[in-house]
Amino acid sequence: MRPSQRALDQMRTVTLQRGVAPFAEGSCMVSFGDTKVLCTASLEEKPPLWLRGAGKGWVTAEYAMLPRATLERKKREGTSGRLSGRTQEIQRLIGRSLRAVTNLPAIGERQIILDCDVLQADGGTRTASVTGAWVALWECVQWMQKRSMISLNPLRDHVAAVSCGIVNGEVVLDLEYQEDSTAETDANFVLTGSGGLVEVQATAEGKPFSEEEFNAMLGLARKGIADLIELQKKVIHGA
Amino acid sequence: MRPSQRALDQMRTVTLQRGVAPFAEGSCMVSFGDTKVLCTASLEEKPPLWLRGAGKGWVTAEYAMLPRATLERKKREGTSGRLSGRTQEIQRLIGRSLRAVTNLPAIGERQIILDCDVLQADGGTRTASVTGAWVALWECVQWMQKRSMISLNPLRDHVAAVSCGIVNGEVVLDLEYQEDSTAETDANFVLTGSGGLVEVQATAEGKPFSEEEFNAMLGLARKGIADLIELQKKVIHGA
Amino acid sequence: MRPSQRALDQMRTVTLQRGVAPFAEGSCMVSFGDTKVLCTASLEEKPPLWLRGAGKGWVTAEYAMLPRATLERKKREGTSGRLSGRTQEIQRLIGRSLRAVTNLPAIGERQIILDCDVLQADGGTRTASVTGAWVALWECVQWMQKRSMISLNPLRDHVAAVSCGIVNGEVVLDLEYQEDSTAETDANFVLTGSGGLVEVQATAEGKPFSEEEFNAMLGLARKGIADLIELQKKVIHGA
Amino acid sequence: MRPSQRALDQMRTVTLQRGVAPFAEGSCMVSFGDTKVLCTASLEEKPPLWLRGAGKGWVTAEYAMLPRATLERKKREGTSGRLSGRTQEIQRLIGRSLRAVTNLPAIGERQIILDCDVLQADGGTRTASVTGAWVALWECVQWMQKRSMISLNPLRDHVAAVSCGIVNGEVVLDLEYQEDSTAETDANFVLTGSGGLVEVQATAEGKPFSEEEFNAMLGLARKGIADLIELQKKVIHGA
Amino acid sequence: MRPSQRALDQMRTVTLQRGVAPFAEGSCMVSFGDTKVLCTASLEEKPPLWLRGAGKGWVTAEYAMLPRATLERKKREGTSGRLSGRTQEIQRLIGRSLRAVTNLPAIGERQIILDCDVLQADGGTRTASVTGAWVALWECVQWMQKRSMISLNPLRDHVAAVSCGIVNGEVVLDLEYQEDSTAETDANFVLTGSGGLVEVQATAEGKPFSEEEFNAMLGLARKGIADLIELQKKVIHGA
Amino acid sequence: MRPSQRALDQMRTVTLQRGVAPFAEGSCMVSFGDTKVLCTASLEEKPPLWLRGAGKGWVTAEYAMLPRATLERKKREGTSGRLSGRTQEIQRLIGRSLRAVTNLPAIGERQIILDCDVLQADGGTRTASVTGAWVALWECVQWMQKRSMISLNPLRDHVAAVSCGIVNGEVVLDLEYQEDSTAETDANFVLTGSGGLVEVQATAEGKPFSEEEFNAMLGLARKGIADLIELQKKVIHGA
Repeated sequence: MRPSQRALDQMRTVTLQRGVAPFAEGSCMVSFGDTKVLCTASLEEKPPLWLRGAGKGWVTAEYAMLPRATLERKKREGTSGRLSGRTQEIQRLIGRSLRAVTNLPAIGERQIILDCDVLQADGGTRTASVTGAWVALWECVQWMQKRSMISLNPLRDHVAAVSCGIVNGEVVLDLEYQEDSTAETDANFVLTGSGGLVEVQATAEGKPFSEEEFNAMLGLARKGIADLIELQKKVIHGA
Repeated sequence: MRPSQRALDQMRTVTLQRGVAPFAEGSCMVSFGDTKVLCTASLEEKPPLWLRGAGKGWVTAEYAMLPRATLERKKREGTSGRLSGRTQEIQRLIGRSLRAVTNLPAIGERQIILDCDVLQADGGTRTASVTGAWVALWECVQWMQKRSMISLNPLRDHVAAVSCGIVNGEVVLDLEYQEDSTAETDANFVLTGSGGLVEVQATAEGKPFSEEEFNAMLGLARKGIADLIELQKKVIHGA
Repeated sequence: MRPSQRALDQMRTVTLQRGVAPFAEGSCMVSFGDTKVLCTASLEEKPPLWLRGAGKGWVTAEYAMLPRATLERKKREGTSGRLSGRTQEIQRLIGRSLRAVTNLPAIGERQIILDCDVLQADGGTRTASVTGAWVALWECVQWMQKRSMISLNPLRDHVAAVSCGIVNGEVVLDLEYQEDSTAETDANFVLTGSGGLVEVQATAEGKPFSEEEFNAMLGLARKGIADLIELQKKVIHGA
Repeated sequence: MRPSQRALDQMRTVTLQRGVAPFAEGSCMVSFGDTKVLCTASLEEKPPLWLRGAGKGWVTAEYAMLPRATLERKKREGTSGRLSGRTQEIQRLIGRSLRAVTNLPAIGERQIILDCDVLQADGGTRTASVTGAWVALWECVQWMQKRSMISLNPLRDHVAAVSCGIVNGEVVLDLEYQEDSTAETDANFVLTGSGGLVEVQATAEGKPFSEEEFNAMLGLARKGIADLIELQKKVIHGA
Repeated sequence: MRPSQRALDQMRTVTLQRGVAPFAEGSCMVSFGDTKVLCTASLEEKPPLWLRGAGKGWVTAEYAMLPRATLERKKREGTSGRLSGRTQEIQRLIGRSLRAVTNLPAIGERQIILDCDVLQADGGTRTASVTGAWVALWECVQWMQKRSMISLNPLRDHVAAVSCGIVNGEVVLDLEYQEDSTAETDANFVLTGSGGLVEVQATAEGKPFSEEEFNAMLGLARKGIADLIELQKKVIHGA
Repeated sequence: MRPSQRALDQMRTVTLQRGVAPFAEGSCMVSFGDTKVLCTASLEEKPPLWLRGAGKGWVTAEYAMLPRATLERKKREGTSGRLSGRTQEIQRLIGRSLRAVTNLPAIGERQIILDCDVLQADGGTRTASVTGAWVALWECVQWMQKRSMISLNPLRDHVAAVSCGIVNGEVVLDLEYQEDSTAETDANFVLTGSGGLVEVQATAEGKPFSEEEFNAMLGLARKGIADLIELQKKVIHGA
């Protein structure tokens, strides 16, 4: 039995709440169970330096946790001036995932920064971030279209993410912290609305995993992500 | 007329929401109008290094803003590894204000860290932080008493804060961002429940201010803080 | 009785020595008793980046202590690459105080940096710095006028500062280190030559202070600063 | 046709040269075509701080490139004091891969650090590093066994890695730089001698990839890694 | 007797291997006995910022050791973001030595960076670096001449370096690590092909040295450097 | 003719003023013409970490310039958190020079830190620092002897330093800034009271120098240092 009494292929309750940050061009509070991330989209009129004059824009992400998002307080990374390897991996993953469904030339020479700040962390913060950041990005793009800054919708597709893992020998979907910390294998999948794969990351924490186990995880992820994208659609059309 | 149509001596709507951070020993979401700060209290079983063996504890604070708490996105301070002078001034002010009403030996050799993370910034973030952090600290102390970690209540009094200023020649209470950015004089007051002064900071941004103006600001602050402390009392007794 | 046998409202011996740094556009060695600060003014032909093209100049300050200015040696802040909160607070205070009496457009698009380096620290280093830096700034302005770089005198008034405090229940003026380290309340006042208030900072180190106590401190400060400004006048006219 | 005239499923010439660093407990110079990495194993008698007293050891890795390993010179990361996200991802990957085949308690309370310094970079530096670091680690373990520091062989299996990708719509094995920089999808696989999966990372650089494409890449990787492990076996037995 | 059985005035076996870094404009692997340094020359089309528009170029050097170049592993300097005083001294020495024989205007507004990365360290890494970097610089200049980027040869002379010392009261040439670590006096000499002195550094580690001892060291250095320059000539003409 | 009308072998006016820092265990204000350095000695009851338990003490130095010690203001090194190569070279030189005449076991397990803060810089700051720091160290040792902390005098000899150079083809003693900045060769010599050499550093800034020129510089230095040591003797005995 899973700690939350969920079935092996069952996700936690997911919510996506739009328009939560009044000053941002786009925003979404996403929760996967007790994991809660505030995603904001900020439009900057200049692309990053290395892209100046390239006739296209950029989408990037920053990720951070509030110090008491976790069971035990963690030091702010700002105190040391260095981002941990984990933080860097996550923010690179979020950025790549969003760029995979964005037509960058259609943005123009601008940059959209997605800030994903974790208010509560109970496993799956990076997958919740990808899923919520897409909504914030969508709002930002709407904001631009309303102001006729862009003619084309630069978002080619949805993108969402979920974690899978092998816990006590069982393949499970959407791990919460207690499962995550004891999983034998830990995987993250990012897929588009049309079912294409954008990112696959699977890591054996203890013993190696087999190709069958990998395929079972991918199957669960595909199902979970389909539900997430359904929810994204509801949220952006219902607003 | 003030931008928000308030009277000169009128505060914005203030809310204090307890218990918002499930993993922390104490927490409070405080809002002063559109300013919104998440305050959490984290209990650590060890005092800071320089206090080891001194037979007493410590209360300290950290302050940060999410990058898109403001109208324009600000870089995270963590990127450079240095806290700005403004951030350091604010977190030192919050810490001193709370210690002024805390019986440090009664905490035992422990440390309580108050994290004040600004989700939305519309002026008065430091005064909202002091006011909300007191509630989070109070919850933390309750948490410790329930577990019989301490016998005495280490909180000797309430503490709350409010800003005043001179805007267009008028003395006003609780400035929002639009007022703050054009104020001739900017002041912050921290007072206890019994009316004692803990911190006074007043700065002429343009021309110097007079003793009369200073006293008018102090008068407004005394009134505003009395209301804030009333609200703190309601919130801790109603829960 | 005060450790130095002074009356409660008596300042330490103050000296202001002009022209001590041969390479600087302005300089002043200021001493308040055993506190000794070397203040230099450096004229830079460019304003800070964020002020380019604004048609006005800037006055700013840096503050540092030599490692053995104090009874026990302190590490240089340079070793860690971060300025302490205390240092940042002080240099921001000095800069604001001087700008409060400076006509910034009259400087032209230039910057004047006041370096306040503490050679000996026996309490009151920030107030001595403000008082001495004004003299260095005045010399720098003279230097500019002699070279016809500016037509108008950009200094609208004098500015000087002094500390007050409550020590053993008594309100005292110009605290030396031994008093400062045991004071119940610690305050700094910055006033102009015409008696306007520029900065007020008062902090309860232990128990809160009353409005009466605050007013008594302000009264002492007003008297002390009047004497300091008298001395500034003597020094700039006698040279 | 591939730039190096290789078949789609053909690896570059691989060499593993043992014992190249006279002062290290283990070492291996690995080359995958023009990619060349010096791997050394350093035994430290203390485990990392957070593992003290846990009754087991640790294996970790550091990765760096010489500034002129690449076609254009790159700044040393040391100049800024921060490791890039890419460097951190790579060294975490190498460490995890080696720990997946190491019996950590069998090492005792010690740490083995694998330094992977890239002398020449022509694509696949991380996969070459994993493959060569395993040999250096094996030498280090031999060194310990010769000195009777450990009784059991802590290495449970071989581990090696290879990259795959989709270039011009074709699935290819072991990408060199020219292919890597234009690949539509980029993947890295780490497998053990017995065929278990340790790490899978696949990233769509442009359009998403399909499950079929992913499986084709995994198939090629399995074949390439089998050859690499064959070579590891030759090298450790022939020496 | 010296640890390596050498005569007092005998250098270790020296090798200079050209063209070892395929991507660099110039390169040389230099070994003095077990000391082994990879020197690469990188041509940049822009001079450093402070030299823009000065009508001449610049030659500079960076120096680093691989962590396991030494008997005991050393932390990478990159981890702390600060170069040690030793590293900075060495890279400044290498840069100055090369500039002493370079006609900087003849390079044009460009910069040549010599990276000296120590693969193995057994004493004399800075003198080996100077000696090998000259060959890499020579190759870079040849590369530029072949492309008609420069008409004049900017290298006016050879330059090479060697260490001397007083070990157990004896004046010796080209110290290896074991001697270096117990030497009473440690000296480094940099001379040109025509016998001019470029750098002299002599340091008493224990008791002061006499003028006679200094002159004896200089005599040995002159002899050793003559041999090194002979070897440089062979290597550049034989290629 | 030299800019200051001095003869080629003539030093600037040198003063050594003892006891200038009331809080330090030893201090000396040293001036070589317009160069002025405040040297303080701070006794710490613990040796540096790496020397704990070694039965001896340590003498070390730190060197810094006030921002306006120079004709043009220089940024504080503290702002960037990194010491320049020049600063590190100088403070290492001062430390080594003092240790060369100190019996480290006679200090006991303690550390003496010499802070050399340049108030005015007109060439020769490092040689003035060595010369003045010796006096501060001597005062510190006296202070320890008066308190019976040590029985033996740990200072075995005097040490002092002076610069020489080749300016316009002439060998000159004790260069001021104007000479230093145009010198063809720049050298620093550190000698003991008994005439032993402690440090020799000579650098060709432009063309190489000859052995004869080197010997002429050494001759001048010997003469200048003899005078400096005479002055040290007067100052320590006259006090």
